[in-house]
Amino acid sequence: MSEAIALAWSVKGKTFPNPAVGAIVVHRSGIVGTGTTQPWGGAHAERVALNQAGPLARGATLYVTLEPCCHQGRTPPCIDAVIEAGIGRVVVGVGDPNPLVNGKGIARLRTAGIAVDAFLLREEAEAVNEDFFWAITRRRSWITLKLALTLDGRIADSQGFSKWITDSPARAFAHELRRRHAAIAVGRTTLERDDPRLTVRRKREFNPARCIFSSGRDLPAACWFLQHAGAARSIVVIRERTSRRVELDGDSRIEYWYTGRSRKSAHLEAFTEMAFENNLTSVFVEGGQKLASSFLEAGLVNRVYMLYGNKIVGRGLDGLLFAKGLPINNSLRLKNMKMLALGDAAFGVTGIPKFD
Amino acid sequence: MSEAIALAWSVKGKTFPNPAVGAIVVHRSGIVGTGTTQPWGGAHAERVALNQAGPLARGATLYVTLEPCCHQGRTPPCIDAVIEAGIGRVVVGVGDPNPLVNGKGIARLRTAGIAVDAFLLREEAEAVNEDFFWAITRRRSWITLKLALTLDGRIADSQGFSKWITDSPARAFAHELRRRHAAIAVGRTTLERDDPRLTVRRKREFNPARCIFSSGRDLPAACWFLQHAGAARSIVVIRERTSRRVELDGDSRIEYWYTGRSRKSAHLEAFTEMAFENNLTSVFVEGGQKLASSFLEAGLVNRVYMLYGNKIVGRGLDGLLFAKGLPINNSLRLKNMKMLALGDAAFGVTGIPKFD
Repeated sequence: MSEAIALAWSVKGKTFPNPAVGAIVVHRSGIVGTGTTQPWGGAHAERVALNQAGPLARGATLYVTLEPCCHQGRTPPCIDAVIEAGIGRVVVGVGDPNPLVNGKGIARLRTAGIAVDAFLLREEAEAVNEDFFWAITRRRSWITLKLALTLDGRIADSQGFSKWITDSPARAFAHELRRRHAAIAVGRTTLERDDPRLTVRRKREFNPARCIFSSGRDLPAACWFLQHAGAARSIVVIRERTSRRVELDGDSRIEYWYTGRSRKSAHLEAFTEMAFENNLTSVFVEGGQKLASSFLEAGLVNRVYMLYGNKIVGRGLDGLLFAKGLPINNSLRLKNMKMLALGDAAFGVTGIPKFD
Repeated sequence: MSEAIALAWSVKGKTFPNPAVGAIVVHRSGIVGTGTTQPWGGAHAERVALNQAGPLARGATLYVTLEPCCHQGRTPPCIDAVIEAGIGRVVVGVGDPNPLVNGKGIARLRTAGIAVDAFLLREEAEAVNEDFFWAITRRRSWITLKLALTLDGRIADSQGFSKWITDSPARAFAHELRRRHAAIAVGRTTLERDDPRLTVRRKREFNPARCIFSSGRDLPAACWFLQHAGAARSIVVIRERTSRRVELDGDSRIEYWYTGRSRKSAHLEAFTEMAFENNLTSVFVEGGQKLASSFLEAGLVNRVYMLYGNKIVGRGLDGLLFAKGLPINNSLRLKNMKMLALGDAAFGVTGIPKFD
C-alpha cells in the first residue's frame, strides 16, 4: 500500500478533476502490475494495473489507494474490470466520499464474492486526495494558501521587494505545491507589483489555471498574465454585485468570472463554488497580503503553507493584515501542524487553519 | 566525551561567571569519577571527578569538555590536580580561549609527560560555552534574543495581549533558556504591559539577574520587579548622556546602571561592556518590540531564538520594527539555523544573526 500511495503522489496534479490514485496487482507475492490515474478521460489506476497484469490478475490481490468506482463516468466502472480480471482480494486505502461511490464500490465487490480489506494506511491514502475529497463533498474547491515570509513575518521589504525571501530549495518546493493544484491565484496588487508568471517549472501534462482577483477587467496590458493567456486557462475573478456568470473573451480566451457578490467573504465563497463547477477542484492562493488575509478571514482556507526564509528585514509589508485582528485566545490555529525542512536557509510549516 | 558534554549541559546556568564543564575519569574502561563545575567559588569539574576517582585516577584517562585551567583563580589551577593524581592521558573537548589559558593548559600537561588528545567533539563541546567564550575574548556579554511570535510575526494581538502565544512545552523551553543565562532583560514597555516576573520555574542554585531598560529610574511602584528586587540581582539600565556608572540603592538593593551614552546602539553596546565587567557574561533579552529591534539593529545579538505558536492573529504588535527596514537582499540572516520541535502547537528556530 505504501508503494501504491507513492504511485498516487507521483501523478498528483496530473489527474484533475479526478483524484490521484495508485494501484498494484500482487500475484504470489510478486508485483505483476502497477498503475496510476491517467490524465482526464484516460484510464483509472486499477485498469492500468490490471491490463499490465493480464492473465496473472486471476486470483491475485489488488492494492488500490482509493475505493474503486462503480459508476459510469468518462470511463466504465472500475469494479467491473476488477471482477472480470478475476481478482481474489482487494485492499483499499481509503473510501471514496464521492456520493456516486461512497461505499458502493466496496459493497459491490463483496457481493461479487471478492474479499475486501478496508482500510489500510487510511490517513496516508487520504492525504493524497484531501483536496478532492473536500471538494466533491462540499461542492466547493479546496483552497491552499501559501505565504513566503521573513522570520519577522514580512512578505516584502520596505521598498516592496520580495525577491527573494526564500532560497532555491524552498522555491522549488513552492513550485511542486503549485504543480499539485488545479489553479494558482494571486491578487491584482501582486500582479502589478511582481508580474508573476504563475507557471510550474517542471514539464507536466497538466498546466494549472491562473486566476487573478481584481476589481475590474482593466489589467495592465503589458503584464505576463495577459501576454501569455494562451498557455493556460486564464481567469479574472471580479467582485461585483451583478449576476454570477462567466464571460469568455473569444480573442484572448480569458475567462471573466463575476461572482455576483460584493461582500468580500461572500465573493470569495462564491468563487470557490464557481471554481468547483468549472472543474477546478483545488486552488493554490499565493497572496499577496490582501487576498491571503481575505481568504483566511473568510474561513475559506483548507490548508496553509508558511515558508520562512532565514531573513529579518525589521520593517516592510506584513504577510497578513486582517481587517479585524483576532484576540490571542480566540485566534486562527494551525491544526495538525507539521514542520517542513527546506534546506539551510528556509523552513516551513503546514497545517489546517481553524478558528479557536 | 558525549557523556562529559551532557554533564556540562546539566550545570549550564549554575556556574556563572565560570564556564560549564563536565569531566569523567575512566580507569580500565570503567568510569571511576564524574564531575561538573561547582557554583562560583567551588571546585572545577576536573577536581570533582578526580576526587571521586581517588587512587584509581593513577594511569587513568580524563575526559574533560574544556581545556583544564593553568592559572590561580578562586581555586588553584586544575592542571596541578591532574598531574598530582597521576592521570595518564587527557582528552579535551575544546580549547579555552580565556587569555589566561588559551593553549597553556594543554602545553603544560604535555610538558608534565601526560598524553593529550585535543580536540574531541569540539563543536558540541564549544556549543555549551559559546556565550562564555565570546564574552571572555570580546570583554562584552553575550546577548541572546528570544521572541515568542504568532505565525504572522506578532508578539501581541491588537488589544496588546500576549498571553499566551505559545503553549506549555514552548514556554517550558523558554524557561530552560532563561536558566542558562546570567541575566534576563526586558524593556520598560514590556514591564508596564506584562509586569513579568523574570524568574525561572525550576529550583536552581543560581538566580539570573533581572535587567529593565528604561529612560529613567521612575518605574511603576507596584511592579513585580520593584516589589521582589531582593530575590535576585535587579538592575535598571538607563540611557543618559552622563558618565558611565553604577549606583546602588542601599535600601532596595537595586542597581542603576548609567551607560553614559544617548545614541541607542552606543548605549546598548556600553551595556554589554558593563554587564561583562559586572560578571554577567550572558544576557537573555526577551523583548519587547523596541528592545529586541534595537539590539538587532545595533548588531549586538549573538544568538536568536524565535518561538512560534501555531496562531494567526492577522493584526497586532509586530515582533520586530526597526527604525530603518533592511532591503531583502541585504538583510539580517540567521546563520546555522536550526529548527526546534516544541510540541504540537509551537516550533522554533535558532541561529546566529549576521548582516548580509
